[in-house]
Amino acid sequence: MKKLINDPADVVPESVEGFVQAHADIVTSSGDPESLFVARAGGAVSGKVGLVSGGGSGHEPLHAGYVGVGMLDAAVPGAVFTSPTPDPILAATQAADGGAGVLHIVKNYTGDVLNFETAAELADAEDIAVKAVVVNDDVAVEDSLYTAGRRGVGGTVMVEKIAGAAAERGDDLDTVLAIATHVNDNVRSMGVALTACTVPHAGKPSFDLPEDEIEIGIGIHGEPGRRRIKAAPADEITDMLLDPVIDDLGLSSGEQVLLFVNGMGGTPSSELYIVYRHARARLEALGATVARSLVGNYITSLEMQGASITVLRLDDETTRLWDAPVHTAALRWGV
Amino acid sequence: MKKLINDPADVVPESVEGFVQAHADIVTSSGDPESLFVARAGGAVSGKVGLVSGGGSGHEPLHAGYVGVGMLDAAVPGAVFTSPTPDPILAATQAADGGAGVLHIVKNYTGDVLNFETAAELADAEDIAVKAVVVNDDVAVEDSLYTAGRRGVGGTVMVEKIAGAAAERGDDLDTVLAIATHVNDNVRSMGVALTACTVPHAGKPSFDLPEDEIEIGIGIHGEPGRRRIKAAPADEITDMLLDPVIDDLGLSSGEQVLLFVNGMGGTPSSELYIVYRHARARLEALGATVARSLVGNYITSLEMQGASITVLRLDDETTRLWDAPVHTAALRWGV
Repeated sequence: MKKLINDPADVVPESVEGFVQAHADIVTSSGDPESLFVARAGGAVSGKVGLVSGGGSGHEPLHAGYVGVGMLDAAVPGAVFTSPTPDPILAATQAADGGAGVLHIVKNYTGDVLNFETAAELADAEDIAVKAVVVNDDVAVEDSLYTAGRRGVGGTVMVEKIAGAAAERGDDLDTVLAIATHVNDNVRSMGVALTACTVPHAGKPSFDLPEDEIEIGIGIHGEPGRRRIKAAPADEITDMLLDPVIDDLGLSSGEQVLLFVNGMGGTPSSELYIVYRHARARLEALGATVARSLVGNYITSLEMQGASITVLRLDDETTRLWDAPVHTAALRWGV
Repeated sequence: MKKLINDPADVVPESVEGFVQAHADIVTSSGDPESLFVARAGGAVSGKVGLVSGGGSGHEPLHAGYVGVGMLDAAVPGAVFTSPTPDPILAATQAADGGAGVLHIVKNYTGDVLNFETAAELADAEDIAVKAVVVNDDVAVEDSLYTAGRRGVGGTVMVEKIAGAAAERGDDLDTVLAIATHVNDNVRSMGVALTACTVPHAGKPSFDLPEDEIEIGIGIHGEPGRRRIKAAPADEITDMLLDPVIDDLGLSSGEQVLLFVNGMGGTPSSELYIVYRHARARLEALGATVARSLVGNYITSLEMQGASITVLRLDDETTRLWDAPVHTAALRWGV
């Protein structure tokens, strides 16, 4: 294992420390290694619904990279690929509470769902109203390692951005929840791994992938996908990811979509644009309009090589909220 | 070799096509595969000094990712790790010319320097005033594969941003050149490779790096660095990169700097922030103030794992120009 790390036990706290220093105009951290979270530099916004997300580390910039104006109020990084415990989630919920309640945005992994639920109960006991949206956009498999039902992947970025914009303009908790749910209902994703990644404290790759094989439908923790195949041209791989996404979304001619091609962490952006090019052509051939695009490393699996394709069905409201100003470390426009 | 590509010969045109589609609000392309360049969607800005850069592909988002308001007017992507020929550089220079002359920003590699010089002579014959800044910020080695003198690496991003802001506010060609030169004089970089990368048409890694070794002072094309060492903790590696940068820059207490930690393409951002954290502590211990920061994949070597550290000495003028609005695919703020 060759990584730019010190002690594997220090990867998350040291990385978060550097992150908060580099983006001190946007974020701050709890500073407590026993209850670590990242929050907006200015603190909770009075009267605004607070948005909190979190989960295992190793998917950066998700989630701390999305803390800031127009998106999250706080993010809770667990150990690498390990859910944070209820305590820091509760602390982040308290920090994000501006008196209008808090929305938890939870990727559908068993540990995350349980720990966010426990934290919500604890917050409720303190009279903080908490609701949750569980993101489950990965069409690759039903049930998987760590998951009952579908996994939450790239759609999480869409939910955080769009619900974040709704909260920022002053929508109440029920409305923000409804918008987040609407986004989750209209987004689908699927990914491919070319290589495995290595969790620092494990010291060896999470799974074995022969030199000439790739895994279609991979999860963001290296959980098994649909099948392994021989390496193939990018356009063929793109079809294998996009077809199930289009089918499951029930996409039809005349619709507007956001096309999001995401890198798993170790793939050059030039390859992501090759995938984007073919996916876009396929969507256009179907009669859909690619009205918005996002291409880059936004929800990763450490240094894994691979990519995922996410398609979000847009309407006027979600488009407007997507376009709204955002100022975070990883997404920024309009400010 | 496992990559998300189709025919290796199509990597650059297909990637550029996807890039231009995804960012059609910012950029357009020449559309001519024989004379490929990327330019601002709106065309040349009348009366503004035009900025053109380019070089071998494989370093994305450099340079096409920096085309847009406040930075470059055009970028010329060669084949992977191969200088573009004079013809597309000339075509890009013509496209960028708004009547106030054009600045070529050239990384110091023999092929790039020669081909940009030839293009400048051809442009001169068409009465376009062209000046050039040759960026040579890599302190690792004097002379290398492809280079006489020092190589141009991360400092290029600083030169493009700051000179771009000067051109955008209306500075004339001599002033923009002077500012670009001033930035180059005050920026130094050094990098490390944990793994090699594979050029698509070669199909195998550019060099061999044993499983337990890293290369200190690597070039962005995998050119040899200073030495190979056994894998070491991130803080030690950071010291090995930062010490020569600080020494060569002659940095002293009380100075303000921009600290730029760059990923080589295959390294997770969490590791870059671990490097940033220690580099920042070292600079602060020296009495310098890290007034601005940039952390991420900004000048890469395909899927190479590794990082580079760039330090730019700031003054009021360069800080103001760094902070000026920029709207490109890879850097965006203030708009």
